Amino acid sequence: MKPRESCGLFGIFGDEEAAVKTFFGLYALQHRGQESAGIAVADGAGALSGHKGMGLVSDVFTPAALGRLRGDRAIGHVRYSTTGSSTLLNAQPLVVRYAGGRIAVAHSGNLVNGSEIRRAYEARGSIFQTTTDSEVIVHLLADPAMGTLEEALPRALCRVRGAYALVILTPDRLIVARDPMGIRPLSLGRVNGSLVVASESTAFDLVGARTVRDVAPGEAVVIDEGGLHSIPLVPGGEAKPAHCIFEHIYFARPDSRIFGDNVHAVRSKLGQRLARDAPAEADVVISVPDSGNSAALGFSQASGIPLDVGFVRNHYVGRTFIQPAQTMRDASVKVKLNVIEEVVKGKRVVVVDDSMIRGTTSRSRVKALREAGAREIHLRISSPPHKHPCFLGIDFPTRTELIASKKSTDEIAAFLGIESLAYQTVEGLLSAVSGPPDHYCTACFTGEYPVHVDGELDKRAMER
Amino acid sequence: MKPRESCGLFGIFGDEEAAVKTFFGLYALQHRGQESAGIAVADGAGALSGHKGMGLVSDVFTPAALGRLRGDRAIGHVRYSTTGSSTLLNAQPLVVRYAGGRIAVAHSGNLVNGSEIRRAYEARGSIFQTTTDSEVIVHLLADPAMGTLEEALPRALCRVRGAYALVILTPDRLIVARDPMGIRPLSLGRVNGSLVVASESTAFDLVGARTVRDVAPGEAVVIDEGGLHSIPLVPGGEAKPAHCIFEHIYFARPDSRIFGDNVHAVRSKLGQRLARDAPAEADVVISVPDSGNSAALGFSQASGIPLDVGFVRNHYVGRTFIQPAQTMRDASVKVKLNVIEEVVKGKRVVVVDDSMIRGTTSRSRVKALREAGAREIHLRISSPPHKHPCFLGIDFPTRTELIASKKSTDEIAAFLGIESLAYQTVEGLLSAVSGPPDHYCTACFTGEYPVHVDGELDKRAMER
Amino acid sequence: MKPRESCGLFGIFGDEEAAVKTFFGLYALQHRGQESAGIAVADGAGALSGHKGMGLVSDVFTPAALGRLRGDRAIGHVRYSTTGSSTLLNAQPLVVRYAGGRIAVAHSGNLVNGSEIRRAYEARGSIFQTTTDSEVIVHLLADPAMGTLEEALPRALCRVRGAYALVILTPDRLIVARDPMGIRPLSLGRVNGSLVVASESTAFDLVGARTVRDVAPGEAVVIDEGGLHSIPLVPGGEAKPAHCIFEHIYFARPDSRIFGDNVHAVRSKLGQRLARDAPAEADVVISVPDSGNSAALGFSQASGIPLDVGFVRNHYVGRTFIQPAQTMRDASVKVKLNVIEEVVKGKRVVVVDDSMIRGTTSRSRVKALREAGAREIHLRISSPPHKHPCFLGIDFPTRTELIASKKSTDEIAAFLGIESLAYQTVEGLLSAVSGPPDHYCTACFTGEYPVHVDGELDKRAMER
Amino acid sequence: MKPRESCGLFGIFGDEEAAVKTFFGLYALQHRGQESAGIAVADGAGALSGHKGMGLVSDVFTPAALGRLRGDRAIGHVRYSTTGSSTLLNAQPLVVRYAGGRIAVAHSGNLVNGSEIRRAYEARGSIFQTTTDSEVIVHLLADPAMGTLEEALPRALCRVRGAYALVILTPDRLIVARDPMGIRPLSLGRVNGSLVVASESTAFDLVGARTVRDVAPGEAVVIDEGGLHSIPLVPGGEAKPAHCIFEHIYFARPDSRIFGDNVHAVRSKLGQRLARDAPAEADVVISVPDSGNSAALGFSQASGIPLDVGFVRNHYVGRTFIQPAQTMRDASVKVKLNVIEEVVKGKRVVVVDDSMIRGTTSRSRVKALREAGAREIHLRISSPPHKHPCFLGIDFPTRTELIASKKSTDEIAAFLGIESLAYQTVEGLLSAVSGPPDHYCTACFTGEYPVHVDGELDKRAMER
Repeated sequence: MKPRESCGLFGIFGDEEAAVKTFFGLYALQHRGQESAGIAVADGAGALSGHKGMGLVSDVFTPAALGRLRGDRAIGHVRYSTTGSSTLLNAQPLVVRYAGGRIAVAHSGNLVNGSEIRRAYEARGSIFQTTTDSEVIVHLLADPAMGTLEEALPRALCRVRGAYALVILTPDRLIVARDPMGIRPLSLGRVNGSLVVASESTAFDLVGARTVRDVAPGEAVVIDEGGLHSIPLVPGGEAKPAHCIFEHIYFARPDSRIFGDNVHAVRSKLGQRLARDAPAEADVVISVPDSGNSAALGFSQASGIPLDVGFVRNHYVGRTFIQPAQTMRDASVKVKLNVIEEVVKGKRVVVVDDSMIRGTTSRSRVKALREAGAREIHLRISSPPHKHPCFLGIDFPTRTELIASKKSTDEIAAFLGIESLAYQTVEGLLSAVSGPPDHYCTACFTGEYPVHVDGELDKRAMER
Repeated sequence: MKPRESCGLFGIFGDEEAAVKTFFGLYALQHRGQESAGIAVADGAGALSGHKGMGLVSDVFTPAALGRLRGDRAIGHVRYSTTGSSTLLNAQPLVVRYAGGRIAVAHSGNLVNGSEIRRAYEARGSIFQTTTDSEVIVHLLADPAMGTLEEALPRALCRVRGAYALVILTPDRLIVARDPMGIRPLSLGRVNGSLVVASESTAFDLVGARTVRDVAPGEAVVIDEGGLHSIPLVPGGEAKPAHCIFEHIYFARPDSRIFGDNVHAVRSKLGQRLARDAPAEADVVISVPDSGNSAALGFSQASGIPLDVGFVRNHYVGRTFIQPAQTMRDASVKVKLNVIEEVVKGKRVVVVDDSMIRGTTSRSRVKALREAGAREIHLRISSPPHKHPCFLGIDFPTRTELIASKKSTDEIAAFLGIESLAYQTVEGLLSAVSGPPDHYCTACFTGEYPVHVDGELDKRAMER
Repeated sequence: MKPRESCGLFGIFGDEEAAVKTFFGLYALQHRGQESAGIAVADGAGALSGHKGMGLVSDVFTPAALGRLRGDRAIGHVRYSTTGSSTLLNAQPLVVRYAGGRIAVAHSGNLVNGSEIRRAYEARGSIFQTTTDSEVIVHLLADPAMGTLEEALPRALCRVRGAYALVILTPDRLIVARDPMGIRPLSLGRVNGSLVVASESTAFDLVGARTVRDVAPGEAVVIDEGGLHSIPLVPGGEAKPAHCIFEHIYFARPDSRIFGDNVHAVRSKLGQRLARDAPAEADVVISVPDSGNSAALGFSQASGIPLDVGFVRNHYVGRTFIQPAQTMRDASVKVKLNVIEEVVKGKRVVVVDDSMIRGTTSRSRVKALREAGAREIHLRISSPPHKHPCFLGIDFPTRTELIASKKSTDEIAAFLGIESLAYQTVEGLLSAVSGPPDHYCTACFTGEYPVHVDGELDKRAMER
Repeated sequence: MKPRESCGLFGIFGDEEAAVKTFFGLYALQHRGQESAGIAVADGAGALSGHKGMGLVSDVFTPAALGRLRGDRAIGHVRYSTTGSSTLLNAQPLVVRYAGGRIAVAHSGNLVNGSEIRRAYEARGSIFQTTTDSEVIVHLLADPAMGTLEEALPRALCRVRGAYALVILTPDRLIVARDPMGIRPLSLGRVNGSLVVASESTAFDLVGARTVRDVAPGEAVVIDEGGLHSIPLVPGGEAKPAHCIFEHIYFARPDSRIFGDNVHAVRSKLGQRLARDAPAEADVVISVPDSGNSAALGFSQASGIPLDVGFVRNHYVGRTFIQPAQTMRDASVKVKLNVIEEVVKGKRVVVVDDSMIRGTTSRSRVKALREAGAREIHLRISSPPHKHPCFLGIDFPTRTELIASKKSTDEIAAFLGIESLAYQTVEGLLSAVSGPPDHYCTACFTGEYPVHVDGELDKRAMER
């Protein structure tokens, strides 16, 4: 099972069909969260309301529900929970009233000191109705000690530590912000006269917008009738960036441009580098679709070993799935991917995957390839061995479940029962992106976190 | 259309099937609110969780949903909104975390200074996610200036003005409270070893409990493993009661005992008194079912005019109803009640109803009786003319929609096109209950409110 | 548990809002079947289509579903299965194509030779997709040996034995028919220029129609653009009627006029007669609502013992109901009716019910009355002892479950634990209706069936 | 929009989890029909029942629904309507009773004389409740003139003309049959001791079965407790095959083996041949995913032009989709596929697609590539120009909507605005499959139908 991403954000200001465009924007970002979806909309005349629900964007937003969301400015959110269990109460945007009026907030990422701040506010008498970091941020913004909303932004966000991309809607303004390390992606775009913001540029493509630039790490952008202006969140300016490299490896869509690079191009380079660093003598290169596709293509190009389609994906994998019967233990794996026997039978096969988390799914895939007659299996992982949990927005399992934190590469190969296994090196990984190596967070591989983390942070801390 | 009631409450402590019993308790109280239902449950070992949804109790609580609510103490709530629009966010119990841990709160009634308190808390930085008075009460209880929860109860509730019956659940305690005037009903009962609390005694009957006593006006009762103890909410003890007389006239179920009287018996006496004060020469007495049944019976008994069944009620009136076509303007009235022609044809008919709000429904009923051949129609209302809005939990329309605030009794009779119309007198009304006359709130008839109300209080104030 | 009725029918010809009126007609007939509902509509230009679903009329027909049913002629059906298990396939009207074009058929009642005819058709190669008698009737009508549809009607219906009321829609005609004994009710009415047909006259009231007359036993009425004409189904004219007396006792709505009598008036007379035939010394008469209301009123009038409200009905009894926990065995009875203690405490109580089937519900009611303090309980049943099953459309349990087929009246009184029990006599029963005594079917009391029945006919025969 | 396939079939005999395996089999065949799904199951002891519904397999078969389907033999069906509009009544398997008992029938393909046979049966008095060919086949099988079921099979199926793959379940037998030309695929497999049958071998992979052989054209296979035996449907043995070549081009899953060839391998060869027959000077080859993937790979291999990922597919395209606003006309195309600008910008691009029907979607794709900066676009279609409708099970639009029936290749290239367009030749197409060229139906390209078709057969004929 692949790790799941924290969230996807979209916002738009000054478009008569703000809610419809937000719907499409969230649709394009659906891969970033499938558990709940929400949109808040304002009309510039004081009204601010929202709708949210559990499930996919197209389930939550029926034409009727969407039709009720009138206004020319909107924000939206898709969510897979990183903090907070999955309930409707935790769906975002969070729409509240405070002394400053109505405000809607949506957040992507994960704070490492969210519980600490929450306890401080509880001690002052505040109550908390959700288990999300977003509610913590709203309490900070609503704190009268912080001043006006624009004053509050840098003051409040100085208090939080961790990863955040934020979109905030008030009756008259759309505000977006990104943590000083720019851990999660967030870009600004423009369509006709309107300003848009999204977690990934693929959302711009769908609504016909062009990318203008990334929201800078440590920058808040305030958009209102008068245009947009920037507010620095950190006194001394931007901190050293720590862009999440795993966005490039797995999460982001290949057609997106994030942190200055196209995701597909980065993944192709990862495959090329891997072919040079860890070559294999083989007859065919196959991908574990779809996340391994770009890297497999790169591996084939650099190695000269022909690419072929070894696995076929079932496009109708549903959400409510029947637990396979005892006699069909492998069905749950085959339901998603099936092997084309003709492609692998009697062949020496290079299998390219983007990452390996627990190793159990890989083992099932290996078994399926063997049953189809693969003679040799050489597994190539386009990222380094995964050894450390993430506290900044990606829901990896705990350290003890990460196979690479317990076994050496040779042991894993033996566990999988394959002829050879090779991972990308951290150096190889960083060679595929255009930014300086120290501008990326690689903590899940190296354990070097860009923020201070107290011991093994409890991922469910907010729920106590 | 009849006015709608604020809410129904139930709670139980020390029963292995606490959630199931709460389900049945709410079921019996369904007439007090049909828009949303919720249950919160705790297990005595620290867990406290809840489930709520829009719709009837039996829709919201599927066996599966109910099965997940494990614990030996629970509270429940059915709601028709008096403050706050009808959304899932506003459903109760409200379950939050604060410095004292987890707490669930459900509330029946209406505060007159809820908005004022909310604004005071907002000025201190608090955020509000619902438009309910209940959230205001939670903020008060969570205020560190109030001390421990038991200390906070009298301090917090001193700050609110208006009607409240409260059930509160913490991991280790069930707390119930009632405003110093005892405006809304709330009773304590016992089943096997467990303590139960409910808005009306009919809920006790369904779960097999016996009524012990009413929660006293101005009393909080704390129930925990050690038993129960009482906390006075008002320093000088109980205020002069102001029990809502409209509970007896219309809201409460006839099988309930509230404010010391059985509801059916009160209504029968109202009918008897009306027969004496406002006799009619007629052939038959009929009721507008079901709320007029008891009074019609009393009228028949006291007048000697035989009772008969003039209207038949359709038991399958659904919630999602098709707007009748233009050619069927009267269908919406007939859908609910149909006349039995044989009973009224050529007769002089006394029609007994419990109250008249706008007069439009009464006019349709009169028309139906005329079409069925009624020779004379003498309408008798078992309560006095309705002239004033309620700010304490009952959702009457605004003053301008109340027919009796605009027209004299003669004018109303002309408007309805009937031979005679008579209302109960306030004195007659108060003669049917056993408490002293000044222990009841009759403000909707007299305009004399038991609490200070600033002008025409805006019922939707909390939504701004 | 009360026995359940076979079905309700409605039809209309020549009304621009035919489907909407049919919706309201079915709504008024909802008490005749709550398991499925359907409407078929034709536009006079060749189109004929339908919609049906499981559940109540207001659940099945959303405004959108109703809006799609365009045409000026329609038929509708509500169903509780008497033959055929409850599945959507068995919902009616059945819409099929045959050599004569499209046809929709809906049926109320039960055939005693349905299985026999089905087997004969099967032997000729016919296939059956439902387990309803209606499908048997369609096969007969479609049989080319029967000639045109108007020729086929008498020929086909001569072949069936049992109870049927039929409404049939073709692209150009609405046809209604009733079996030669007129076992199930069926009336013709008129609204504006349109002709309507319904199982009970209450449906006419809701759509603003006036009753014209009953469809005669053994009559088919063909309604088309040219008006209506009658076709006799039996060569020698009408057979001796055998109207189902149980329609008057329990099934029909009290505001309906069926078989020439108002139902409420019949029930009142049954109560009056019972008071004279089986008096009781008592303080109060109470009804088991709602089906016992009219008889209790009559009993009180004739006996001079005052009527009071002893049981209160919960109007929100849902369809998906939680099985009460083990410790709450009586909840399922109390959920529906609760006792008003003040009315029965220390009193000698006459309880009037319309019928007793298994006796188990009665026993629970008696227990509830005792717990509320009733001193004496005198149960009066307004119909005779129920000893025989029905093969003509009413879903009574098998003979072994009918308490009166196994126990004497004294034994039943002992089983219930009451001071006295008395039933109506058959003679008393027949004295309450205006037709000659031998024009009613009383087989469930006497065992004298109006049609030949082979042994204990298997009610589920059609499902093999 | 791609053409849609008629249906997918699955059957199993002798497996304790027959319904669960059928569920998984249908799951693997979901691409063959997404509008309804059904399973019928028998237990060998006489019971035969079914469940079906609208929607995807995983929507229709909740664990509860599946749990009720007990028995060791089952058949299943997924459907996209080719004849008959999409309603639940038309969902399959059709479960009926006839003189021989209960029988369930599911059918893939399309008959050209279904309406003719239906009219013949209607003339004999038969009624039809669905608009499916399957009901026609059931009437034939139930015809007493046909004898026992095994006798009836060849006699009945001699009467039908067209494409059919059939799975039939009786309480004791599973029968499968395939038309004499073997137009639609149908294979036999084995898992543990059980026999399975499926439209495509990918269903065998998911349930762990191995393919045994294809059901021969013109063969019925009867499977019962005693094993299996074959019944020839055509007196003189098998007719000349006419396998649907479009199954290889588009419909079947690439991991399936049908008509003796692996689908992916055929498609790769189509791409290779196209590269040789219609080369292009270009920098990159991209596929229109997913149906063009295999051919694009083959094109790249044969041409030496590197393959890259030019289009990214959104995996969350829902079923209930919001119509894009007027200002977003291209959203509906981009919702499904988005271009990776970095791959095509400034490049000469070969785009490989499997087929072109109306040309409108292709034009939108071309526009998206141009906006992304593609310098030259060379479209290569791996099948020949599509000029003729299909009467044998594939839902192509009418001739006038097929762009290639109205425009020359040059005109189409001009319409699309591309540098070059080339189609596969029919000869090239047939060179990619292993059977003799005259064993395939290529009527949609050549107009040479393998059965006699009367004029332009009306696809909706059965609905009259």
